[in-house]
Amino acid sequence: MTSPVRLALLGCGTVGGEVVRLLHEQSADLAARIGAPLEIAGIAVRRLGRDRGDLPVDPALFTTDALGLIKRDDVDVVVEVVGGIEPARGWLVEALRAGKSVVTANKALLAEDGGALHDAAAEGGADLYYEAAVAGAIPLLRPLRESLHGDRITRVTGIVNGTTNFILSAMDATGAGFAEALEEATELGYAEADPTADVEGFDAAAKAAILASLAFHTRVGAADVHREGITEVTAADVASARAMGCTIKLLCIAARGVDAAGGETVNVRVHPAMIPRTHPLASVGDAFNAVFVEAEAAGQLMFYGRGAGGAPTASAVLGDVVAVARNRLAGVRAASESAYADLPVRPMGEALTRYHVSLDVTDRPGVLAAVAGVFARHDVSIATVRQGSAGDAGTPGRGADAELVIVTHVAPDAALAATVTELRTLDIVRSVTSVLRVEGGV
Amino acid sequence: MTSPVRLALLGCGTVGGEVVRLLHEQSADLAARIGAPLEIAGIAVRRLGRDRGDLPVDPALFTTDALGLIKRDDVDVVVEVVGGIEPARGWLVEALRAGKSVVTANKALLAEDGGALHDAAAEGGADLYYEAAVAGAIPLLRPLRESLHGDRITRVTGIVNGTTNFILSAMDATGAGFAEALEEATELGYAEADPTADVEGFDAAAKAAILASLAFHTRVGAADVHREGITEVTAADVASARAMGCTIKLLCIAARGVDAAGGETVNVRVHPAMIPRTHPLASVGDAFNAVFVEAEAAGQLMFYGRGAGGAPTASAVLGDVVAVARNRLAGVRAASESAYADLPVRPMGEALTRYHVSLDVTDRPGVLAAVAGVFARHDVSIATVRQGSAGDAGTPGRGADAELVIVTHVAPDAALAATVTELRTLDIVRSVTSVLRVEGGV
Repeated sequence: MTSPVRLALLGCGTVGGEVVRLLHEQSADLAARIGAPLEIAGIAVRRLGRDRGDLPVDPALFTTDALGLIKRDDVDVVVEVVGGIEPARGWLVEALRAGKSVVTANKALLAEDGGALHDAAAEGGADLYYEAAVAGAIPLLRPLRESLHGDRITRVTGIVNGTTNFILSAMDATGAGFAEALEEATELGYAEADPTADVEGFDAAAKAAILASLAFHTRVGAADVHREGITEVTAADVASARAMGCTIKLLCIAARGVDAAGGETVNVRVHPAMIPRTHPLASVGDAFNAVFVEAEAAGQLMFYGRGAGGAPTASAVLGDVVAVARNRLAGVRAASESAYADLPVRPMGEALTRYHVSLDVTDRPGVLAAVAGVFARHDVSIATVRQGSAGDAGTPGRGADAELVIVTHVAPDAALAATVTELRTLDIVRSVTSVLRVEGGV
Repeated sequence: MTSPVRLALLGCGTVGGEVVRLLHEQSADLAARIGAPLEIAGIAVRRLGRDRGDLPVDPALFTTDALGLIKRDDVDVVVEVVGGIEPARGWLVEALRAGKSVVTANKALLAEDGGALHDAAAEGGADLYYEAAVAGAIPLLRPLRESLHGDRITRVTGIVNGTTNFILSAMDATGAGFAEALEEATELGYAEADPTADVEGFDAAAKAAILASLAFHTRVGAADVHREGITEVTAADVASARAMGCTIKLLCIAARGVDAAGGETVNVRVHPAMIPRTHPLASVGDAFNAVFVEAEAAGQLMFYGRGAGGAPTASAVLGDVVAVARNRLAGVRAASESAYADLPVRPMGEALTRYHVSLDVTDRPGVLAAVAGVFARHDVSIATVRQGSAGDAGTPGRGADAELVIVTHVAPDAALAATVTELRTLDIVRSVTSVLRVEGGV
């Protein structure tokens, strides 16, 4: 058999440990699929001597010198599962420039500075694979960057953060508020002690940037992504959504648009939104992930699976390892970054969205006319209005409270936001009880 | 720019016409993604002079001499969308042996004699891609043959035939019988004039063979697939399923098993089955397709989208065209067939399945004991029994009819079938009203 393909593993936590375990358990299968055995040349960790359970690996392979390991002549492929920007960036740039293939699960780095990695890969003639960076085990990046290359993707809508999906699913199921649902998620291990990256949408935003880059052949970074988390989502919002036949999900959305001059643009954003319960994404529960892709010829596609966890992430890492190992044996390099389209990324204010707005209003004649006038002034057209009494059932008595639920047609997000701001100033509006974007064709 | 990659298109029906249209509309994007323009060298059709609408292509490109076109020196890639075994097999073997890359949507040929194509591809050092052959536009084969190569797939369960899914969805929604639902499907263009290939499961069986080959690194042909269609599914079956919180789908299932000696085996089958309404496949309605994949590390994955139609199929074909064109420019060949595992394909009788059996029985003491005895004699253990009266609500009067609904645990299919056969011979069993396999963890 051919001489082995040798891996440097950077990081040996939950995912790294699973990678080691799978490499060991499936070594015969992997060798058959690649045409050569895989061997671990070394494992870089922060601290030696830590108890690593019964990891099936020679303890002599551990080192704290990651850079030294990467530079060794007998290392062909570098697998990075450390995360974070530095020192990972320096390591991977070094490896790629030296012509070593890189497999990484580092979404933050890819979203922050993917360009640097792609440039280094081009310079060194090396492969850069990162299936595990988005939606864990779901084979998603390869379909986007290969299978759909004969088509034109118009929109990607994803549930790509398991923690927030667990929280929102719990709020939907039990009527709990955000704080209570977060507490449950923390207890069950679905949320970290500091849940900021998840609940404020940073994690989803990094993934949105990666997805948008692949879907639209355009470099999109984390800074290009409009980001809103779920901490402001209330039990009242969830109830409003339910009354509309909807559920609330934290969505990452990357969509093509058109600017005033008719030129193509891209908008990328992460925010909670109502989607109809009949939408395929609505039934994605617990900590599962799913990504809904719309393409001109292919129509609607959805990819569903586990977005996190040691074994699922390790599965994605190893799929990439098999691919880059095969490429090395064949003496070839996979298609490199495709960023030829270079579409302008437009700010959130220009994105076309729809709003669902619930208002507590004074129940007297003329209220709807006044409210509708505000929408009209901002050029926002109204799709549906539902008037009900907030407390009692429809005896419109002067001075009582009533509820007004309005769903708009699509309009620039800035116009919608300005509409809500003006609504808050009206005397007849006692409070704006819920404002949510609406997606998925309500 | 590099000199063009030239395509021979074999067939110009619904899918072929869409391929031509997409090649024309997206030529700039495709050229940018490939690094060279794509050009149509010729289009082989059965009859010249047929009205092809406003297809954006030079009429001089049409020819009836497919083999002559394939052999031309200026043809790099052969795209086959004719279907059927011959003459397609001869054409593609010729092309592959001559080192020309082949993209085909021909599931029947791949299932009948995929080995001949893979062998010819290896001989000629050419690429053989066929994403469009299974589940139309859903990127499925590439994930199976690449993304999940670091994992161990244990089971693939798919809804891969749109016609039968439309019919079963209609039966579930309206309570209609098979004949009525088929008539509706025919009227709406979801079923062909001769629906045999769809309703008898031949189409799904071909796709099952292709999926099993990829999932288990083993050559599986159409003849290896146990096949049952949906023509025997009755409105009573659908009602029984509904009572169990289930729906009926025509599933293709490829599963790992273990033989008596502990060796690994594969079982591949197509048949209608009850699945719980909470299963991700249950909500796949109308003519949509979806494939549910279970892998040891990745866990549960699902791929969903349109399984047929000109544009979705053409999208998959073009995705493959981009891949093979890139490979040609890079002077490389994709990973070839992976059939190293060569697992034995075992017959249906040995597959582990579960049955749901509804019986009309004489309502008298001892009936359950007698029925349970039959299951026990065949070593089939019973998971649940529900006794109800068939007509009235539970006044067990001697001589009246009662209904007995039994769901088994898993057992070899042969034992389950033999159990049902013996049940039919019992005096106390007036009729076996419904027998259905159960999948998806009821």
